Amino acid sequence: MKIVIVGGVAAGMSAAARARRLAEDAQIVVLERGPHVSFAACGLPYHLSGEIADADDLLLHTPASLQSALGLDVRTHSEAVAIDRAARTVRVAGPQGEYDEPYDALLLAPGAVAVAPPLPGLDLPAVRTLRTVADAVALRERVDAGARRAVVLGAGFIGLEAVEALRHRGVDVDLVERAPQVLPPLDPELGALVAGELADHGVRVRTGVSATGVEEAPDGGMVVVLDDGSRLPADLVVLSVGVRPDSALAAAAGLDVDARGAIVVDAAQRTSDPHVWAAGDATAVVHAVTGARGPVPLAGPANRAGRTAADSMLGAEVASPPVLGTAVVRVMGLTAAVTGANAAMLADVEHHTLHLHGGHHAGFYPGAQAVHLVVHVGTDGRLLGAQAVGREGVDKRIDVIATAVRAGLRATDLADLELAYAPPYGAAKDPVNMAGFVAQNVLDGTLALWHARDLDAVRASALVLDVRGDAEWASGHLPEALHVPHTQLRDRLDEVVAAAAGRPVRVHCASGVRSYLAHRVLVAAGLDSASLSGGMQTLRAVHPDLDLVTDADRVPQPA
Amino acid sequence: MKIVIVGGVAAGMSAAARARRLAEDAQIVVLERGPHVSFAACGLPYHLSGEIADADDLLLHTPASLQSALGLDVRTHSEAVAIDRAARTVRVAGPQGEYDEPYDALLLAPGAVAVAPPLPGLDLPAVRTLRTVADAVALRERVDAGARRAVVLGAGFIGLEAVEALRHRGVDVDLVERAPQVLPPLDPELGALVAGELADHGVRVRTGVSATGVEEAPDGGMVVVLDDGSRLPADLVVLSVGVRPDSALAAAAGLDVDARGAIVVDAAQRTSDPHVWAAGDATAVVHAVTGARGPVPLAGPANRAGRTAADSMLGAEVASPPVLGTAVVRVMGLTAAVTGANAAMLADVEHHTLHLHGGHHAGFYPGAQAVHLVVHVGTDGRLLGAQAVGREGVDKRIDVIATAVRAGLRATDLADLELAYAPPYGAAKDPVNMAGFVAQNVLDGTLALWHARDLDAVRASALVLDVRGDAEWASGHLPEALHVPHTQLRDRLDEVVAAAAGRPVRVHCASGVRSYLAHRVLVAAGLDSASLSGGMQTLRAVHPDLDLVTDADRVPQPA
Repeated sequence: MKIVIVGGVAAGMSAAARARRLAEDAQIVVLERGPHVSFAACGLPYHLSGEIADADDLLLHTPASLQSALGLDVRTHSEAVAIDRAARTVRVAGPQGEYDEPYDALLLAPGAVAVAPPLPGLDLPAVRTLRTVADAVALRERVDAGARRAVVLGAGFIGLEAVEALRHRGVDVDLVERAPQVLPPLDPELGALVAGELADHGVRVRTGVSATGVEEAPDGGMVVVLDDGSRLPADLVVLSVGVRPDSALAAAAGLDVDARGAIVVDAAQRTSDPHVWAAGDATAVVHAVTGARGPVPLAGPANRAGRTAADSMLGAEVASPPVLGTAVVRVMGLTAAVTGANAAMLADVEHHTLHLHGGHHAGFYPGAQAVHLVVHVGTDGRLLGAQAVGREGVDKRIDVIATAVRAGLRATDLADLELAYAPPYGAAKDPVNMAGFVAQNVLDGTLALWHARDLDAVRASALVLDVRGDAEWASGHLPEALHVPHTQLRDRLDEVVAAAAGRPVRVHCASGVRSYLAHRVLVAAGLDSASLSGGMQTLRAVHPDLDLVTDADRVPQPA
Repeated sequence: MKIVIVGGVAAGMSAAARARRLAEDAQIVVLERGPHVSFAACGLPYHLSGEIADADDLLLHTPASLQSALGLDVRTHSEAVAIDRAARTVRVAGPQGEYDEPYDALLLAPGAVAVAPPLPGLDLPAVRTLRTVADAVALRERVDAGARRAVVLGAGFIGLEAVEALRHRGVDVDLVERAPQVLPPLDPELGALVAGELADHGVRVRTGVSATGVEEAPDGGMVVVLDDGSRLPADLVVLSVGVRPDSALAAAAGLDVDARGAIVVDAAQRTSDPHVWAAGDATAVVHAVTGARGPVPLAGPANRAGRTAADSMLGAEVASPPVLGTAVVRVMGLTAAVTGANAAMLADVEHHTLHLHGGHHAGFYPGAQAVHLVVHVGTDGRLLGAQAVGREGVDKRIDVIATAVRAGLRATDLADLELAYAPPYGAAKDPVNMAGFVAQNVLDGTLALWHARDLDAVRASALVLDVRGDAEWASGHLPEALHVPHTQLRDRLDEVVAAAAGRPVRVHCASGVRSYLAHRVLVAAGLDSASLSGGMQTLRAVHPDLDLVTDADRVPQPA
């Protein structure tokens, strides 16, 4: 058995190692066009930041270590330039020239390539992507040499990691994102929190604009020109506007490739040629929630797919799981994480959206930080996706929900999860449990929600009832709202009825907990009531420019 | 509808609040024999430690706040002393004397009481449990007043929290545990890690011994006498040897109570009387893995059961989920957590046990800490339980596995969980995923394990093969082991065959990763091989007194 693997990073190396463990006698050749195999691509931003001081620490294995540990024939600087599927050979351009390498089974794991828009100036030496060890080293050397102004183009995961790394080094950063918000995989109400954190750390966030080119400046630096006319001086530019599948070799060999350029594979990672498999960022995967097929460039699923491909090449009946797209990023002191479908992916699916702001641990134990959680729930109770932003415990909650989605749990089942509780770690009713309780209440009609995005319509047709305490009301409230603290609501129902004057009542508090209690009182009184999902916290994130009335005399002053 | 609830802490208050949200017009009376309702019982150790400076922060609600927010009639210092089930009344001993309170539905949520062994001296004023706010305040006042020597009786969750709190205050601590190890819910190989952490922080851990009494000492302090003859001087004693259901009221009323004294309830929390429900630490619950019925005193399930009881009292068809016993405790710098069944609970169940020591985040990112993970897997692949100990990321992994167990996932499904990965948060192959891969390999025969507990038998009948690197070998190895680093194994197979001389080969490395690779090479060479689960790390935890040969000349010295 002769296995040839094109690409020696995540999917390719996972496949090679798994194949060896299953087949000690197989001949396994790994062709890697770059200088390194098995390097820590996800660690590159942390070399730029200086946290990973030595770039060699990003090199997890060498061809020599892979030969001795796993008996792999790993060839770097060796590019697969063509496949002869009839002859079952790969044409390799290596350090000593070109040659044909025969295979019994071929795995294509070439990964993705950075998208480079057709803009003038992107070929300047101080414009880099952050995809290779050489990129990270080059960017770091420029910072070491005194670069003090950076422009990061693209506010996705890699772009934000680059921003963080550059700020960590004290570099002044402009962040440019074509979409209306940073980190577009997040729903807008959570993206706003990330944007706020960036601004708090001195990053100039410019959304809804694109670069039109990069020019050399008289001072030896550069100027990034935007389509709104802005001109941003820069000593270096990080290009992180996305990646696309590197499927040219597959397409040239006549293998099926989809409209977005991703190699088409079945669940066992087999391409349209029964002797050729593909795995990783170059392939189209199936989304676990939406069923959509397309590339999802993430390390975990790539490694998993490589393992599946090895099993399949060696004859096992296996299937890669559909992909949830679980991802996490650290942005200064915040963590943002996602799993499953977001609002954009659910644009055509009727569903409920729940907003919670529970503490990452018990409120009575010092240091509790809010986990800002958004959960999408099908009208049939299906758990569709979740996102969270906060300072502590965000990755844990998303991992729990990702496990629940993978297992096919319903949103209401989140109420029954029995999670580890002691005051430093969580709450007896964890935010994830609370999401389950809210889902139960929404699905069975105990709770009706209204949403921050519907504010204008609500203001036009309903009584807005603010049930927060006096100090919260004074610190900023909607000018037309009626204020009745929830603790006084039972005694002051007649005021509410009078103010509503037949209109629906749309109640809110700070986070949605007290307004739920108020909602139950209002419903029992026969009123048409709904409670604001996520309360004032979510309202302010969705409407950052909202005009609120403050009553400074009534706000308690710090002693 | 008139609801009377006996007990105003976890289950009772959850039920009261839920009942109000569902039934605005219900009359809801909560009878609490103590001075506080809805206090943070789990927070008591952190008042003793000083982390929660003000004991008032442990009081989450007052009767007045519960009246205004939820319309509850909460009566403290009011003990239910008898139930007349025929008349549907509760006899209450309150501040103004005794009276009968009628009910339509009665919920018993009296909780548990501390087990107090019949030993002389436990009535001394400086001997306290840690169950009430008064306990925490009293213990703290003694420390504030200069107590410097403490004996903690019982090394369960509360006992360890008390030890940590006392060490935090600089108090000298002897910890006494009747069982052979601290934290008996942990399997011994993980319990050893907790014991080591305690010892590293100056705690004198005394396992396998019991107190026989507490005596007053001439210096005004006390002496705790143990059954091994030890006499431990102490200024205060914390009694934390366990709790039992507080079911006297229920039993006296003729309700079904099991052999351990727990009130028998159905899944809807209903007792043997259709007008009486019970919830929380006083009841018997069903274990989700073993199916055993018994008390499991944990806050999360208690709150959940209170909610179920309220729903059921108000006519809904509901069921509390079976209980996994998920729990977590901080012990100095370590976290220990459990979910599902442990080895003791599986004594009569054939199963596999997996040991892993993966990093809590990517190894190339600085600061990775081992998550010492034990996973029990049925021979049919069922996920039975897991435990973990480590410095970071322990609660996250146990929460993920608790979710997987609750959802009925198989152990092999852990391989497919798509968890949030970025270098500061996890690994592309998380320790939980790795447990799934190992489970796959063990269940399909790709990997055969041997266990540290079988060391004697292995030494008597097999070749022990150590495949670690030279420096690891030199730092300590079994005297009779053959040393062949895994990177040299393919070239030196003849040495192994000769040394085995027909015996099985039992291979190990430090954690079990490299010995798995070696195992595959040995199997391909036709040898009878097995790999040590958890490697030398687990071996040393199970056999702390193991005589290892060190070769100091070959150990690299720190520069």
